[in-house]
Amino acid sequence: MDLNADLGEGFGRWTLTEDEALLTCVTSANVACGFHAGDASVMRRVCDTAAERGVRIGAQVSYRDLAGFGRRAMDVPARELTAEIAYQIGALRVFAEAAGSTVSYVKPHGALYNRVVHDEEQAAAVVEGVLLAGGRPAVLGLPGSRLLARAEAAGLTAVEEAFADRAYTPQGTLVPRGEPGAVVHDADEVVRRSVGMAVEGAVTGADGGRIAVAARSLCVHGDTPGAAALARRVRTALEYAGVRVRAFT
Amino acid sequence: MDLNADLGEGFGRWTLTEDEALLTCVTSANVACGFHAGDASVMRRVCDTAAERGVRIGAQVSYRDLAGFGRRAMDVPARELTAEIAYQIGALRVFAEAAGSTVSYVKPHGALYNRVVHDEEQAAAVVEGVLLAGGRPAVLGLPGSRLLARAEAAGLTAVEEAFADRAYTPQGTLVPRGEPGAVVHDADEVVRRSVGMAVEGAVTGADGGRIAVAARSLCVHGDTPGAAALARRVRTALEYAGVRVRAFT
Amino acid sequence: MDLNADLGEGFGRWTLTEDEALLTCVTSANVACGFHAGDASVMRRVCDTAAERGVRIGAQVSYRDLAGFGRRAMDVPARELTAEIAYQIGALRVFAEAAGSTVSYVKPHGALYNRVVHDEEQAAAVVEGVLLAGGRPAVLGLPGSRLLARAEAAGLTAVEEAFADRAYTPQGTLVPRGEPGAVVHDADEVVRRSVGMAVEGAVTGADGGRIAVAARSLCVHGDTPGAAALARRVRTALEYAGVRVRAFT
Amino acid sequence: MDLNADLGEGFGRWTLTEDEALLTCVTSANVACGFHAGDASVMRRVCDTAAERGVRIGAQVSYRDLAGFGRRAMDVPARELTAEIAYQIGALRVFAEAAGSTVSYVKPHGALYNRVVHDEEQAAAVVEGVLLAGGRPAVLGLPGSRLLARAEAAGLTAVEEAFADRAYTPQGTLVPRGEPGAVVHDADEVVRRSVGMAVEGAVTGADGGRIAVAARSLCVHGDTPGAAALARRVRTALEYAGVRVRAFT
Repeated sequence: MDLNADLGEGFGRWTLTEDEALLTCVTSANVACGFHAGDASVMRRVCDTAAERGVRIGAQVSYRDLAGFGRRAMDVPARELTAEIAYQIGALRVFAEAAGSTVSYVKPHGALYNRVVHDEEQAAAVVEGVLLAGGRPAVLGLPGSRLLARAEAAGLTAVEEAFADRAYTPQGTLVPRGEPGAVVHDADEVVRRSVGMAVEGAVTGADGGRIAVAARSLCVHGDTPGAAALARRVRTALEYAGVRVRAFT
Repeated sequence: MDLNADLGEGFGRWTLTEDEALLTCVTSANVACGFHAGDASVMRRVCDTAAERGVRIGAQVSYRDLAGFGRRAMDVPARELTAEIAYQIGALRVFAEAAGSTVSYVKPHGALYNRVVHDEEQAAAVVEGVLLAGGRPAVLGLPGSRLLARAEAAGLTAVEEAFADRAYTPQGTLVPRGEPGAVVHDADEVVRRSVGMAVEGAVTGADGGRIAVAARSLCVHGDTPGAAALARRVRTALEYAGVRVRAFT
Repeated sequence: MDLNADLGEGFGRWTLTEDEALLTCVTSANVACGFHAGDASVMRRVCDTAAERGVRIGAQVSYRDLAGFGRRAMDVPARELTAEIAYQIGALRVFAEAAGSTVSYVKPHGALYNRVVHDEEQAAAVVEGVLLAGGRPAVLGLPGSRLLARAEAAGLTAVEEAFADRAYTPQGTLVPRGEPGAVVHDADEVVRRSVGMAVEGAVTGADGGRIAVAARSLCVHGDTPGAAALARRVRTALEYAGVRVRAFT
Repeated sequence: MDLNADLGEGFGRWTLTEDEALLTCVTSANVACGFHAGDASVMRRVCDTAAERGVRIGAQVSYRDLAGFGRRAMDVPARELTAEIAYQIGALRVFAEAAGSTVSYVKPHGALYNRVVHDEEQAAAVVEGVLLAGGRPAVLGLPGSRLLARAEAAGLTAVEEAFADRAYTPQGTLVPRGEPGAVVHDADEVVRRSVGMAVEGAVTGADGGRIAVAARSLCVHGDTPGAAALARRVRTALEYAGVRVRAFT
């Protein structure tokens, strides 16, 4: 099982994610590329540390929206979106390669992540941007999303991820944020669910039933207080349960 | 003699440089990378056309200042500047490579161009950014600038450029903008000077004397009305005078 | 009949609208406030000229999206949108008042304009922003829009506008851009339609039928080549037809 | 003695200053206006709380530089700077007035603060921007700065401030950041110096000598961990020493 987290989400004077600490326990780093967070200095630093620790580097691409942290859905025309995705991957690749690594995968952030679950046009535009950027990185996303379907159709490696701290509907989709119980706040419960998803490929749904979750990567959040400590606990529990924690291949 | 021009200096809804027309006559395109101008869509389009026409692509790197078009000197700390230069080169490289070309050189823009003539620290920071970006592109700048000295010391190809429409002091430096006669507006005169610099390696100075100008590239401006027509005339005159117009090597 | 146009849509080095020329013929200036276009220097200059010529000043408020020129719909939460609208009005008011005028009305731009035709939440958020900004300016928008309904419900003056160069459906709404014939390009036709709407309160619809258009303001576009010349012709034709061209009251 | 602190220096998803806590002990709030930090929502919230608690509101104006947090000196032409200052004041005034207060003073931030100590042209441009914005707010700055001289010459109230945590040279100027001992980190010492400056109008200089410091306002920093707790201690100590802590008049 791969462990991924959003990293490098500071900007200029502002910090957000506990980059140093998280890079001691995740296996894949979703590095912000400057459109919703992340400036060139942050990107360089995170890539240097990730490469040093053998953590895989991914481009966490986003809408161009610093003020909204990429959390506001935007009707970006497909051609613009494609170019913007490629721009972000290219900018990050410089720092990944300077550190002796590369951009191994791409994961959309925030509102773009949610949009490409269903939006055929934007999903296609993102995949086209990934192809344009070259190097054929993998694409990380929600199981069943248009994004992953498009990535697969384009011959890219499509990697499904699960969320350690999100509730699932009986249909296996995420309970939307804002609905009661959408986010699991209890740390013990987060750890328990993580192990369940990794070992049994299943999790308890919002209705109490058993939901199959087939994922090669598990997302732990990096922008909440105590994120690094929780990620560390998840990793330890996974390893204790016999799960081999390593980057997806 | 190489002919270079600033291109891709639109942004979103705004256009500035006559990209299409200029790409029919210059041999090197200094493409804006999003910090003073140029968005991802513009960068892609300019790279596509440049590659198609065999025009060499360079990164026109800048301070991060859209509102000031990169024309306001900024005291950017060296480490930040280095990362920002690499970021811009990386972003552009994606589009250059997707078009089957590459980023062959780097040329600072506006206030950064002027600053690195004398500022040792920023000149070093820019060169470090170029090295960080990899690929060892050439560096284009003012003869005698700290930038070119630093680039050479780092083993990069340092390319000196001359300006077709700028007046020179007896010492061979540019008459500062703002001083009377700093910019040559008469098109015939611009053409004449261009040929003189290319054929005889000299130009008439502001005091009427003869100034030696050793340059491998000649900069024609792209953001003035009629820029493309003037560039076309300069190229034709150079060729008529027996000068081989082609990208520097 | 009032004549309004979008003005001040340059930014830094870039220009777009023919501000000087348009301010000789329109009666209301929709001044960009820095979110989709317009920087502080442009805003100041346009306000100075408008005040000098007795042209009324309005705040052309927008989503925060310079790269997309405010033309990409954004899911901005209501509270953020309200604050952003007030911010823009406040910034513009400084220049309007310094010039001896004031911000008399507010008109949303681009994607926000289209969104608040139907989106109840964003329409309410815009009106709340207008109220927050104080001074009770009028609100300019599409007849039948949620925006105008909300403005009226809040006790603000709601002003309906018509478009000189846009085709209308039999229902009296605009033919969406992108559909064939959505924009009227023929200048004579634009002038004829303008007079028809002003004198008879009607225009020929896309299906050839007669559409009633009750508007107190007529929008002429400012960002197309020849915009000022066309606006001048519209004004002259209106006056020749006996229409009194002046700001709405 | 007035106590001022920089507030509202978050942006979008990022927070920095402990706004709520600081507003329980300072008497003047220097509110960021969106150019180096502060978005419309933050500005609104800080103004609401400040007004509610009777804390005076000031505009903390800055260079336009989010990525550098306004800490990088910029050669902004005077006319642009004037317009940008007015823009920021106007935007903040909307929220101050909506909360029943007003913008009582203006204080430059970061690199601009330092620049207008000596730079005659930028100092004049800032004061012109303050005048342009109307309402004749006071200007807060360093004793002996060109800014305060210009403000006074323009008939504005010029308010000198002292720094609780900065070392002073024998000449009464601040020891530049970066030099050893420039910032006083010991909380007890900060409190002691604050009381000394308020009661005796003097502080111990970097060379051990006694330095006269005549200030009507004392700046406590808001962007360091524990800022609010320290500000609270300073205020308590001042009141215990018999100093009346209230906004300057």
